[in-house]
Amino acid sequence: MPPDSHIFQPPRGTRDFYPLEAARRRWLLDKWREVSTRHGFEEIDGPTFEHLDLYRRKSGDALVGEAFRVSRLSADAGQPQDASKSDAETSDELALRPEFTPTLARMYAAKAASLPKPTKWFCVSNFFRAERPQRGRLREFWQWNVDCMGLDIPEAEWGNEETKTWRSRARADAEVIICAIELLNGLGLGPGDFHVAMGSRPALEAIARSREFAVEHLDRVFALLDEVNKLDEAQFRARAIERGLDPERMMEMRVIVASPGFQNPAAPANKDDQTAFADSFVGEIASIVDEAALSSSAKFEEYEHAWHLVRQYGYGDWIRADLSIARGLAYYTGTVFEVIAEGERAVAGGGRYDNLIELFGGPPTPAVGFGMGDAVLSLLLQDKGLMPSDTELMRHAGQTPDVFVLNPADEAAEAQLRPTVARLRAAGIHARHTYRSTRNVGKLMKEAV
Amino acid sequence: MPPDSHIFQPPRGTRDFYPLEAARRRWLLDKWREVSTRHGFEEIDGPTFEHLDLYRRKSGDALVGEAFRVSRLSADAGQPQDASKSDAETSDELALRPEFTPTLARMYAAKAASLPKPTKWFCVSNFFRAERPQRGRLREFWQWNVDCMGLDIPEAEWGNEETKTWRSRARADAEVIICAIELLNGLGLGPGDFHVAMGSRPALEAIARSREFAVEHLDRVFALLDEVNKLDEAQFRARAIERGLDPERMMEMRVIVASPGFQNPAAPANKDDQTAFADSFVGEIASIVDEAALSSSAKFEEYEHAWHLVRQYGYGDWIRADLSIARGLAYYTGTVFEVIAEGERAVAGGGRYDNLIELFGGPPTPAVGFGMGDAVLSLLLQDKGLMPSDTELMRHAGQTPDVFVLNPADEAAEAQLRPTVARLRAAGIHARHTYRSTRNVGKLMKEAV
Repeated sequence: MPPDSHIFQPPRGTRDFYPLEAARRRWLLDKWREVSTRHGFEEIDGPTFEHLDLYRRKSGDALVGEAFRVSRLSADAGQPQDASKSDAETSDELALRPEFTPTLARMYAAKAASLPKPTKWFCVSNFFRAERPQRGRLREFWQWNVDCMGLDIPEAEWGNEETKTWRSRARADAEVIICAIELLNGLGLGPGDFHVAMGSRPALEAIARSREFAVEHLDRVFALLDEVNKLDEAQFRARAIERGLDPERMMEMRVIVASPGFQNPAAPANKDDQTAFADSFVGEIASIVDEAALSSSAKFEEYEHAWHLVRQYGYGDWIRADLSIARGLAYYTGTVFEVIAEGERAVAGGGRYDNLIELFGGPPTPAVGFGMGDAVLSLLLQDKGLMPSDTELMRHAGQTPDVFVLNPADEAAEAQLRPTVARLRAAGIHARHTYRSTRNVGKLMKEAV
Repeated sequence: MPPDSHIFQPPRGTRDFYPLEAARRRWLLDKWREVSTRHGFEEIDGPTFEHLDLYRRKSGDALVGEAFRVSRLSADAGQPQDASKSDAETSDELALRPEFTPTLARMYAAKAASLPKPTKWFCVSNFFRAERPQRGRLREFWQWNVDCMGLDIPEAEWGNEETKTWRSRARADAEVIICAIELLNGLGLGPGDFHVAMGSRPALEAIARSREFAVEHLDRVFALLDEVNKLDEAQFRARAIERGLDPERMMEMRVIVASPGFQNPAAPANKDDQTAFADSFVGEIASIVDEAALSSSAKFEEYEHAWHLVRQYGYGDWIRADLSIARGLAYYTGTVFEVIAEGERAVAGGGRYDNLIELFGGPPTPAVGFGMGDAVLSLLLQDKGLMPSDTELMRHAGQTPDVFVLNPADEAAEAQLRPTVARLRAAGIHARHTYRSTRNVGKLMKEAV
């Protein structure tokens, strides 16, 4: 080893993808793409870094704090210099994308006038968070995003005019939820392995308002409720005080969202019970809404209709009503959901964000979507023995040769074989050509296998 | 538009990929993958950001100056804080990868003992440079990297022991060059559209040493020669002075590398002439080497043999000897080459880097490879009318539906259709389901087309 050699490690929380790991990632990404396209979603993508303001103003503080900053090095490699500022362009700082939704909203807003209703997009890309790495959580990870925008058009639904708008929004909710279920289902995971827990931001808001939380504190209330299943009572109370939220009223909310009426441990066995359950769930929320004198009852009908549609499409066994699902991000406005597998973090999470596209300069546009990361999903597939074998993965990546060209003769034969190998490859055939010069056919065959 | 709404642009030099642009990128990336795999290369990838030192010490100053720095935001979002330092890990700074070769060398060095000889890897990923954006040059771009490592094994070649090592290295050179040609050839570009210009670092080094340039100045000499075709005589002289290189001796080098003997404007028409040309080229270099009393003649035989092999594989019409090809990066040690199309920047560039893996803590390992970016290649394909039509691109991306489900009846029919749509999709069929509630079949058909 020369004196100035140095062994470098990949940065903490990132991964090297050797051929097998790359084939595994490729297989998963292809699954994501395949399920998306057959559900009518089209692939898009944005830049790997964005203006930091895009996240600062829309995603909430937590995500901005976790965003890696991107800057340009000055000539002496000492002082970081903002890449865009130095070009006298804007004063915006840049950040590696921690999530996709703000990019999606920006892209939709920029072309809203020429986009169809609904617009159904998916994205399969890498994202970055400066979190402490742990099991299932990395600093660079791959994520599948599926979103449906612009579906509240009256002509999209049968039925009476009054209900058409929220009925078509509910259809969008059902479609993205089913797309997530169908991905996992296609990988061999059944209703016993995971469920989709469906919560409601309007319901949580009604409850919070009934407990006299101010509108400007709701983001913080939701962020704390998002942790309700991870914290015991004492921790939850301490965290509330820490964040300037009244601990008594937060404990009341904790009791409500965790009560059996709002967090059913298992989906009812038959469809009549499921209907009854959904009715009673919405009924209970409605009474809270009445109590809080809020007029968001249509949001609960939207929730109920999405529930109804998921069952009608045939996926009733996979969904559970669960008001403890709050989701941490500030921009959600309607139904929120998480895909939950026993013993793992959420495999996917998402919800409805009807105000975001307008905040990014577009027309008022209802939207719903989810993200699913590669890390937790891979752990789940490995635990369940559902990851394809190494051989299958390499075959999927095209790494199984069609032809193996051996030469047990001499150099003259080699000179004649070379153009043949080139012609095979030019014709689309995966041809390997031995790197051993020997007349021992057994040895050559061994290399080929 | 709400009062706090704001229209964001993508950061300068980056791109948004709407469905058509994403399909175009997908098509190109798939072409890269397909050509690589059928030439026996396996896909790998590394992290999107690396320790800055990885580039600082190996790629030369130019690339480090263009690298975006990555850092973690502190809690108040004000002071950038180094991501790894805050974890008391190392003091390394992080950078978005400006190129792939250092990552590849790091990954090879980490597993060298268990890797086959040769190891043939390719990578299809995004890279980042904080350059001023211009035609064919972006701040985020996609690049195809193809590399062959570890091929100087005597058992790989017929012939006498003395020549086997450089003969097998030359085979690796020929294989990666052919992989680049075959990609372009498969896209419809023929010998009239582009050529591979093959230069030699050892030859340039011999000439530089014969002009009494010191070893420690060679990187700067190569970096300036890399610009020889872009600068006129006065500019070239001024740049030499600017960089502390003797202008008279640099002008002498300029004359030599640009002389017809070392930069043939067209490949000779027939094979005998090609052979004669290659012989005369190597002969001329050899006399310079003798003059400089350097003992690197094997490097020229390696060059000549690579030239010979490319012709033997059937790609002689695509290559030209061109000593003005220097390549800017510090790590090249042998044959260097660029894929050149009339009127465009280089479409691809690469060469042999036999010392890099050892410098990254691995065993001494010969290696050769190239990178091809998406931006210049896309411009070239568009100019030549070789980019597939939008319809073809969308079909390639799986965006052409297999089934379109219409309902010209009523809501009851819709309730019955839903599980059918779900079953079609679950069976792997790309099914679209109308978003219009009307009995007007004509309208519904219009939506489907």
